[in-house]
Amino acid sequence: MDRRSFLRTSALGGTAAAAASTLAAPAYATGNRTLTMVTAWGRGLAGVFDAAERAANSINAMSDGSLTVEIKAAGELVGALEVFDAVTSGQADMYHAADYYFVGQHPAYAYFTAVPFGMTAQELSNWYYHAGGMELHDELGEIFGLKSFLAGNTGAQAGGWFNKEIQTAEDFQGLKFRMPGLGGQALSKLGASVQNLPGSEVYQALASGAIDGTEWIGPWADEKAGFQEITKTYYTAGFHEPGAGLSLATNRDVFDELSPAHQKIIEIASAEANQWNLAQFLANNGEALVRLQAGGVKTLEFPDAVWDSMATATGEVLDQYMDDELFAKVRASVESSMSASSGWLTKSEGAYRAQRDRIMG
Amino acid sequence: MDRRSFLRTSALGGTAAAAASTLAAPAYATGNRTLTMVTAWGRGLAGVFDAAERAANSINAMSDGSLTVEIKAAGELVGALEVFDAVTSGQADMYHAADYYFVGQHPAYAYFTAVPFGMTAQELSNWYYHAGGMELHDELGEIFGLKSFLAGNTGAQAGGWFNKEIQTAEDFQGLKFRMPGLGGQALSKLGASVQNLPGSEVYQALASGAIDGTEWIGPWADEKAGFQEITKTYYTAGFHEPGAGLSLATNRDVFDELSPAHQKIIEIASAEANQWNLAQFLANNGEALVRLQAGGVKTLEFPDAVWDSMATATGEVLDQYMDDELFAKVRASVESSMSASSGWLTKSEGAYRAQRDRIMG
Repeated sequence: MDRRSFLRTSALGGTAAAAASTLAAPAYATGNRTLTMVTAWGRGLAGVFDAAERAANSINAMSDGSLTVEIKAAGELVGALEVFDAVTSGQADMYHAADYYFVGQHPAYAYFTAVPFGMTAQELSNWYYHAGGMELHDELGEIFGLKSFLAGNTGAQAGGWFNKEIQTAEDFQGLKFRMPGLGGQALSKLGASVQNLPGSEVYQALASGAIDGTEWIGPWADEKAGFQEITKTYYTAGFHEPGAGLSLATNRDVFDELSPAHQKIIEIASAEANQWNLAQFLANNGEALVRLQAGGVKTLEFPDAVWDSMATATGEVLDQYMDDELFAKVRASVESSMSASSGWLTKSEGAYRAQRDRIMG
Repeated sequence: MDRRSFLRTSALGGTAAAAASTLAAPAYATGNRTLTMVTAWGRGLAGVFDAAERAANSINAMSDGSLTVEIKAAGELVGALEVFDAVTSGQADMYHAADYYFVGQHPAYAYFTAVPFGMTAQELSNWYYHAGGMELHDELGEIFGLKSFLAGNTGAQAGGWFNKEIQTAEDFQGLKFRMPGLGGQALSKLGASVQNLPGSEVYQALASGAIDGTEWIGPWADEKAGFQEITKTYYTAGFHEPGAGLSLATNRDVFDELSPAHQKIIEIASAEANQWNLAQFLANNGEALVRLQAGGVKTLEFPDAVWDSMATATGEVLDQYMDDELFAKVRASVESSMSASSGWLTKSEGAYRAQRDRIMG
């Protein structure tokens, strides 16, 4: 992928968006405006659709009816992965999705959801709100004609469900495993046969033996998917998505013509949804894990040597994008913030948690 | 403290607030309203005053001028610890403070800031937004005529600065140490001579040897206070405030007469300030810790046996409030949520962080 292809896309998006804004201006002049939000989620999908709905409801309530966000689930207006093009072209006003779905548009989008061995949800917030992350999201948005905000987070995703225990990195050789994104690319380097199945097909594929294992999200969503009915071997910690952020992105021309109050409402509603949704996942994951364990699920951790191999493979995957200037800039910013931020977290909250767990169980 | 004394306070607050709302009603009828926010913070105090300002600015911007929050720093209208009475009596409309300052009004307020061996900032969010915490804050608020929201968090506070290393719990005997709140009560049980000095006097007391040590907040604030000029012995993890929440509380009658849009604006602005402020503390703590270490500060952890003694003392301190029904109810709710929520966090993000630290340093 080269820089010129981004600029072509940008020019196209810009023209279409300008047309949309011409149509929209009279509606804004009356003080009331409907914004169409397309999402990458099935209607009601636990956690992720909730985050979109939380942001939309806050925008509607805080604007006292002067903004009305109408949510379209995946497939209602466009498909799950078409939401980016729908918003950059002006077909819809905003999307709610995980930005790493759009690494084909720009690889740096990976950093606004999660990269393997990358930031936890808290480290992502530290970077995004106080160490340059939001500004880099803006820089990406300028290429495509978007104004984006973080607006949800799943927390650290589980390592996944396996039909056997993983004792060495060699156990991944030939393993048919479902994992999308950069994490999947890293597992490929370890010899796994990585499958990118649509969510709706994963349960059946695991049950039939078409795949040997899958990662999904975490106990709450995994339990709903029912994987514990097929295998009891569950790796709780994963290398691939240590804190997966979701984004609410508005067509830039649409955003620019909103009043400052409406712009601030979208910004603050998105950020609130970010915190609310992370807490939702973690509160529910905690309770679901207790139920899964009570139902006989065995929770495991990958051995150190397996983590080492995952880290080596991850480095190779990330390095292949380093020719892109903006990717390299975002990566450097992320790694610098993560390093400073994690040092304190380990020595304070990390040490406290270890002591509390030791004493109180 | 008995239940009746709360009810008396409540009746008093209710009457005064009703008078205030009568005065305020015409202003609201015009659609514009000024709300006076008193705070427990000196103007510009890093982190905590920032959180108050963040919430106020968001409210002002999102309401497009129909609400104007005017912030009063400590001492400008009332003293730092008088903000609770100022708002319950209707003298001011809202306060921003740490609710554990008001354990004299009700001991359960401790749980909405931090208790020793209690919740981290993330666990507090999980509980508050998704496991009954906000509803219990409301239940406390009904006693006093307040509508409260979490609106800031310092993250895990540092163990503190000492003029000697702590090798056994006996080292606390006779130690003149500054620590407010329930943590200070626990240290007293270990034989420490606990000092509750105003913030402005702590540096001088430590420099002169009037105290042997102090906890403060964390590297960012501690560095600004200058304690590293006096001693280089710094315990990074502490038992006393594992994630100290700040609250924005509005007089209940004032809140009830606001429009639903204005109420939602206050709720969402507070929650956003909560996330923004925690990220601010953590991003800045990370960078400050690097500087402190470069300047020769030695970071230490208390030995396991010292943590054990702190835990025993904490249990004794918490138990002395268990005769109060609402305290017992809040404690049970907190401990149940913390237990479920921390199990998953340890096995997912905790295990991931340990591996990442091991591999990447």
